[in-house]
Amino acid sequence: MATKMADHGILIASGPWDPTPWAEAVRSLDPARPVFIWPDVPDRGAVRYVMAWHPPEEALAGLPNLSVVFSLGAGVEHVLSRKMLPDVPVARIVSDDLTERMTEWVALQVLMHHRQQRRYDRLQDERRWHELRQPAASEVRVGIMGMGVLGASAARVLVALGFSVAGWSRGPKTVPGVESFHGDAGLDPFLARTDILVVLLPLTPDTRGLLAMPLFRKLARDGALGGPVLINAGRGGLQIEADIVRAIEEGVLIGASLDVFETEPLDPSSPLWGMENVVVTPHCAGWSDPMELTVQIMEQIAAFEAGRPLRNVVDRAVSY
Amino acid sequence: MATKMADHGILIASGPWDPTPWAEAVRSLDPARPVFIWPDVPDRGAVRYVMAWHPPEEALAGLPNLSVVFSLGAGVEHVLSRKMLPDVPVARIVSDDLTERMTEWVALQVLMHHRQQRRYDRLQDERRWHELRQPAASEVRVGIMGMGVLGASAARVLVALGFSVAGWSRGPKTVPGVESFHGDAGLDPFLARTDILVVLLPLTPDTRGLLAMPLFRKLARDGALGGPVLINAGRGGLQIEADIVRAIEEGVLIGASLDVFETEPLDPSSPLWGMENVVVTPHCAGWSDPMELTVQIMEQIAAFEAGRPLRNVVDRAVSY
Repeated sequence: MATKMADHGILIASGPWDPTPWAEAVRSLDPARPVFIWPDVPDRGAVRYVMAWHPPEEALAGLPNLSVVFSLGAGVEHVLSRKMLPDVPVARIVSDDLTERMTEWVALQVLMHHRQQRRYDRLQDERRWHELRQPAASEVRVGIMGMGVLGASAARVLVALGFSVAGWSRGPKTVPGVESFHGDAGLDPFLARTDILVVLLPLTPDTRGLLAMPLFRKLARDGALGGPVLINAGRGGLQIEADIVRAIEEGVLIGASLDVFETEPLDPSSPLWGMENVVVTPHCAGWSDPMELTVQIMEQIAAFEAGRPLRNVVDRAVSY
Repeated sequence: MATKMADHGILIASGPWDPTPWAEAVRSLDPARPVFIWPDVPDRGAVRYVMAWHPPEEALAGLPNLSVVFSLGAGVEHVLSRKMLPDVPVARIVSDDLTERMTEWVALQVLMHHRQQRRYDRLQDERRWHELRQPAASEVRVGIMGMGVLGASAARVLVALGFSVAGWSRGPKTVPGVESFHGDAGLDPFLARTDILVVLLPLTPDTRGLLAMPLFRKLARDGALGGPVLINAGRGGLQIEADIVRAIEEGVLIGASLDVFETEPLDPSSPLWGMENVVVTPHCAGWSDPMELTVQIMEQIAAFEAGRPLRNVVDRAVSY
């Protein structure tokens, strides 16, 4: 190690994302700090932090001075699943910016299904003036799975819009105006009263593949929309896409909005692209400015180097 | 007049709307009260109230016992413009149901433009996975023209979503978190800071034709969306559609959502139907259940007949 600063470097391993804006953000905030972009790491001993998004296995190995891994998003399964991950703290992003953007996307998708926007789009294409029967928001029961920071924020806006909102989470959570369900025992009653299911769960061994036909069949069938709708802004690994396609075809679901997929980018051959009442977006719900998130990571590093505790460190026992 | 009840009848003159659900709602709430559906009025002296939506001129004439006209919506210009309207109170609908539905529609349309949904729809059609650069809501300035009950409700939800919200109205209005502009002097500064213009104005001699090229040119051009967007849920008479078409073609506006039109239904030949970033809906923003609104009208009638004051009576000096 040449200098004190030389072992305080940051490695950016951003997988499918362009690393350039992240590297530029770090350099503009802390010009003296070494920045490496995987796989270009001439001095592995100089890496103290990794900023990671779906990092390659090897990016996390052989870093003798690694102290913290920062996920570049709210999820961390893409880091925790790496076998070569050493026993260091993994911190995730909890940013107002990310939360607000997810809330915007969720509110938009709930309203698109509630207000039948895709049917109105079709009528517009056909130049047909035809008014559809429209239930009130108060008649529509939204159920949010995952009542962390993102779920609670979405719930607040949906309550303000007049929807009848419930939340389900592993442990009990209280949000004003939101009916609360939790744990295994609470899941079926929660699903049975839900017309629009909004999923903001983390991807863990317990939640992988949960969004499948058996769960869809437990959703409310007597609701004001004529059937249940699935909105997934969590992780693609939560869902079985073949089941979503079949559920839409068979009317078990009447619509869906999906921002995440089992394999991203979603393959052009997926039937989901072509389904009229399925909204496909390219993992953009929580689109955040790299500068905005890098500011938060650099604040975390400054605190860590001053001996203060890191925030938003993942509990590996529950994987989030 | 045969009986006391016989001159307490209700005439339904619902213009382009099917009168049947309104008549059924009255009959189910007050089975003893005579109900007439224009033009079938065998005893004109029996009509004490008119429930009106774009009523034919003659429907309001020659009714010797007419006491109140109830508009079936928030607007009243379709009644006040009738030359044969006698000098009786005209009451409009102010219902939580109507307010919430308008707020849903406004929030949906603001979010569709903010989150570039029409561009994502196109990408989905093309089966293309492509993420668009996305500003935060806090970077987008929404301006609401008309800060009555509907405008204030929309403002509250848009503030909760994180948008930078301002309101303009004839006189000063205060809504928490909303920058306030008013009067002629406040209009240009309000427009100059507005990226998404939401119009919830009543149609009056002062507001007719206001949404035209000169106003569009005053909107912000330096905003995070790349240009201004028009959202009109007020009245079609507020807008000059030829100017909207030209403004979109010339990039003076980058998008629009229109629920109301100069002539309704909108003619199939209108170029608005075919414009990719123009959302056309068939005057459905405030879609309300006839039963819900009839309950309010029957409560008004009960109060009026008990000698209590009517609510939501129009001030004819300002036409709303």
